[in-house]
Amino acid sequence: MSIAARTLAELASFVGGKVVGDGAVIIQRVAPIDEAASGEITFLTNTRYAKYLERCRASAVIVGIGAAAEYFGRSPVAFLEAADPYVAFAKILQLFSPAALLAQTRSAQASIDASAVIDEGVTVFPLAYVGARVKVGRNSALYPGVFVGDDVEIGSDCVLHPNVVVRHGCRIGDRVILHAGVVIGSDGFGYAGRGESRVKIPQVGFVVVEDDVEIGANTTIDRATLGRTVIRRGAKIDNLVQIAHNVNIGEHSVVAAQAGIAGSTKVGKHVTIAGQAGIVNHIEIGDGAIIGPQSGIPKSVPAGVVLSGGIAAAPHHEWLKVMTLLPQLPKLWASVRAMERQIADLVKK
Amino acid sequence: MSIAARTLAELASFVGGKVVGDGAVIIQRVAPIDEAASGEITFLTNTRYAKYLERCRASAVIVGIGAAAEYFGRSPVAFLEAADPYVAFAKILQLFSPAALLAQTRSAQASIDASAVIDEGVTVFPLAYVGARVKVGRNSALYPGVFVGDDVEIGSDCVLHPNVVVRHGCRIGDRVILHAGVVIGSDGFGYAGRGESRVKIPQVGFVVVEDDVEIGANTTIDRATLGRTVIRRGAKIDNLVQIAHNVNIGEHSVVAAQAGIAGSTKVGKHVTIAGQAGIVNHIEIGDGAIIGPQSGIPKSVPAGVVLSGGIAAAPHHEWLKVMTLLPQLPKLWASVRAMERQIADLVKK
Amino acid sequence: MSIAARTLAELASFVGGKVVGDGAVIIQRVAPIDEAASGEITFLTNTRYAKYLERCRASAVIVGIGAAAEYFGRSPVAFLEAADPYVAFAKILQLFSPAALLAQTRSAQASIDASAVIDEGVTVFPLAYVGARVKVGRNSALYPGVFVGDDVEIGSDCVLHPNVVVRHGCRIGDRVILHAGVVIGSDGFGYAGRGESRVKIPQVGFVVVEDDVEIGANTTIDRATLGRTVIRRGAKIDNLVQIAHNVNIGEHSVVAAQAGIAGSTKVGKHVTIAGQAGIVNHIEIGDGAIIGPQSGIPKSVPAGVVLSGGIAAAPHHEWLKVMTLLPQLPKLWASVRAMERQIADLVKK
Repeated sequence: MSIAARTLAELASFVGGKVVGDGAVIIQRVAPIDEAASGEITFLTNTRYAKYLERCRASAVIVGIGAAAEYFGRSPVAFLEAADPYVAFAKILQLFSPAALLAQTRSAQASIDASAVIDEGVTVFPLAYVGARVKVGRNSALYPGVFVGDDVEIGSDCVLHPNVVVRHGCRIGDRVILHAGVVIGSDGFGYAGRGESRVKIPQVGFVVVEDDVEIGANTTIDRATLGRTVIRRGAKIDNLVQIAHNVNIGEHSVVAAQAGIAGSTKVGKHVTIAGQAGIVNHIEIGDGAIIGPQSGIPKSVPAGVVLSGGIAAAPHHEWLKVMTLLPQLPKLWASVRAMERQIADLVKK
Repeated sequence: MSIAARTLAELASFVGGKVVGDGAVIIQRVAPIDEAASGEITFLTNTRYAKYLERCRASAVIVGIGAAAEYFGRSPVAFLEAADPYVAFAKILQLFSPAALLAQTRSAQASIDASAVIDEGVTVFPLAYVGARVKVGRNSALYPGVFVGDDVEIGSDCVLHPNVVVRHGCRIGDRVILHAGVVIGSDGFGYAGRGESRVKIPQVGFVVVEDDVEIGANTTIDRATLGRTVIRRGAKIDNLVQIAHNVNIGEHSVVAAQAGIAGSTKVGKHVTIAGQAGIVNHIEIGDGAIIGPQSGIPKSVPAGVVLSGGIAAAPHHEWLKVMTLLPQLPKLWASVRAMERQIADLVKK
Repeated sequence: MSIAARTLAELASFVGGKVVGDGAVIIQRVAPIDEAASGEITFLTNTRYAKYLERCRASAVIVGIGAAAEYFGRSPVAFLEAADPYVAFAKILQLFSPAALLAQTRSAQASIDASAVIDEGVTVFPLAYVGARVKVGRNSALYPGVFVGDDVEIGSDCVLHPNVVVRHGCRIGDRVILHAGVVIGSDGFGYAGRGESRVKIPQVGFVVVEDDVEIGANTTIDRATLGRTVIRRGAKIDNLVQIAHNVNIGEHSVVAAQAGIAGSTKVGKHVTIAGQAGIVNHIEIGDGAIIGPQSGIPKSVPAGVVLSGGIAAAPHHEWLKVMTLLPQLPKLWASVRAMERQIADLVKK
């Protein structure tokens, strides 16, 4: 993955950090702390992994400001101190991991409508499908099995990984990454009436995915019934997430794997939604809110709050007892209230 | 999306409703209440959105019987009263949203076995695959990336969206919609024995999807071990749902996103299963039952009951306290029982 | 599905079991107990289904050792007693269900890089994609829509079902089954920093899937940030499961549908994780542990323990009361403690 070697001092300069130790040491690669060897740089942000430092054979370790003093001498490595060592690690890893070189041509084995407008530098792999009047911006890549429906617009520098589906009329911004199997613009789950007389509500809206969004493998984002489902700038969505019709995910919000957000709900900016959380329809999640894993959110949430609803699993036989008693909480309260009255009577006497 | 303009009176007649206001007003499109402009019709079924009525610039609003009187005068719009305004909205939206016009030909870039029997009006897009002895009924559409395995039968007027997989021997009825990435007929999760000596149980059954079923993006429906997994007529299944081997989903039942139903369970007719619910194997869910979001269903459920098991998330630090105490419920009960005895003793004295 | 008829005595010998009744009866197929007819063998391992024995028209029934005596005479069938009747059933079903005969050729409609090394007996279906320097071992099958990225290695006797994606550099062992829509090697969900300054951490590791692993439809397994995500020998993973970056799943462990395992968590050998369970990042699940359905696992789990955390759904109106009281558990405890003190005072007096 390496393209070039750098000195530790060069890397420190690149990330705005400071060398503690030998700045002339040559770094060629990034590696995890328990595997790193000579010529490699690693990082230590979670003290849980400090135990690996003793035997660490990396040439350098990225740590927080002032942390080198604590670790220095434990091993022969040099340190790179950075204000946010994890960000420094990410930037150095980016430096050593250039994007794959792509053909920047349209495969003859792809199916591309004659009316599609495809900019320079775009790679259309074999077996990709591009519908009528589609626009694809500079340097984007459509991997094999990608489906781009009629009238879709895709910005520049996007990557649509294998078997991504973007249905008709949806709009994808610049620098968007859609991982394998993502579906954008499937019909929302909308019906009127019941049973035999249930009627499908046509889903005639579309999806807008703004710039710098990344969406994980096999995640599904439904088109709006009317209007648009919107994933705002910088939002990051993990694998197997369900985003229903007319949902709005705010700027820079993060949604972890297997979470689900029901129809027309508005998620604010900088919100964090943890894995397997479920959010009902037609509510609002305020800016900066944090929703814990497996939490159920039945009503709107104010900005900035931290909510949890997940239950830590317990030994099975103990949990069975708890689960038998849980439905009897109302009875327990009634017992306690009755006793309170009795005690009050006794105290009076 | 519009094909033709209609007067409000024509639309009222089409849905069996009644005009309150100017029936001659021309309607060209359907739009949401907060975006609708002149020439558009909108609807109001959720009073939460009544606030938008003041500034609403739609030419007409669909409401319930008698509701126009309440709103009349708040804005210059006319009203269409209907017994079920949401159904009226759906039907009018269908009227203004004709299905996409398809080529009704077989692409030379598709891979179609010579033994497949494909009826008139069928569209096979480029990059679709059709196996041996497959039958496809009139006017169905197979989008790019669709895989139809050997001996599959697909009825008429079906839509298989991009990258749908229907494995060998499965049967799909008429007017079935399979959204992008749906997998029908994957192997059920069946093994005998343990560890090193675990043996795969061949999954030699198939899946039957009856008429008028709609299945959401990336949902998976496993083939039966022996016999069949069945999705009955009119059932609607949302995105990312798991339906295990030998499950039976009854007529007109509805399963919301990310729910999971384990092997051999029989779900009755007109059942509603909300999002992220989980249902164990080998049980029965009675007709008309309603299962709330995130509910776990460990045993059979009688017809018509409404069950919930989801927990509303709470502020994180409060929830931590609750979660510390929850496993101690048995102790709490014991304390309460002990106190009851003590109080009884004190009262006696 | 049948290839040949066998006598019951031959089948008993094949599975190391014992005939009770007529060993000369001819068996041609396997069928479920409620549908089996003459010439078919069925099995009875769950006493819940014993009621079907009276009317069972199968020619033979597989049961546990000594069980035939109990059932004999209830119906005209013969019995095959086996130490593990479910394993015997699986083996007999395998015998009657040979694998599909494949072309063992490379379709001209596939896209195969000239540098790929594809062994004898491999079937590459139309519309499959094979990247540069890929290796595929003997008799493996790549179904339509399969994407195999550059430098991937796939062992022998593997089946990659339609629309499976294996991204660059991942390694798949022998006899691995990847069901339709599986994604192996998508980017892990890794960022450093927050909001506007959030930085993507390149995911430059890969995924190793060892021998005899089976992975269910639309499951996603992310590549490691650095190093490798590993699914060890014999592990079985169901549909729609999320396995995050750097996770390690131990030998012969089983993960049921819609479960999710967060980054860097190590799952031991012979672990069972039930459906919709969620496991946080950076923990260890000990060998042989069993995690119940919908359980949340927030910290490491010792070997061999059985944990549950799922809640059985209750009638909705009762559950509402319980859910109102649950957040007040700390208050309830305080009341109980206060009363205990009061009673102690009263008792003293």
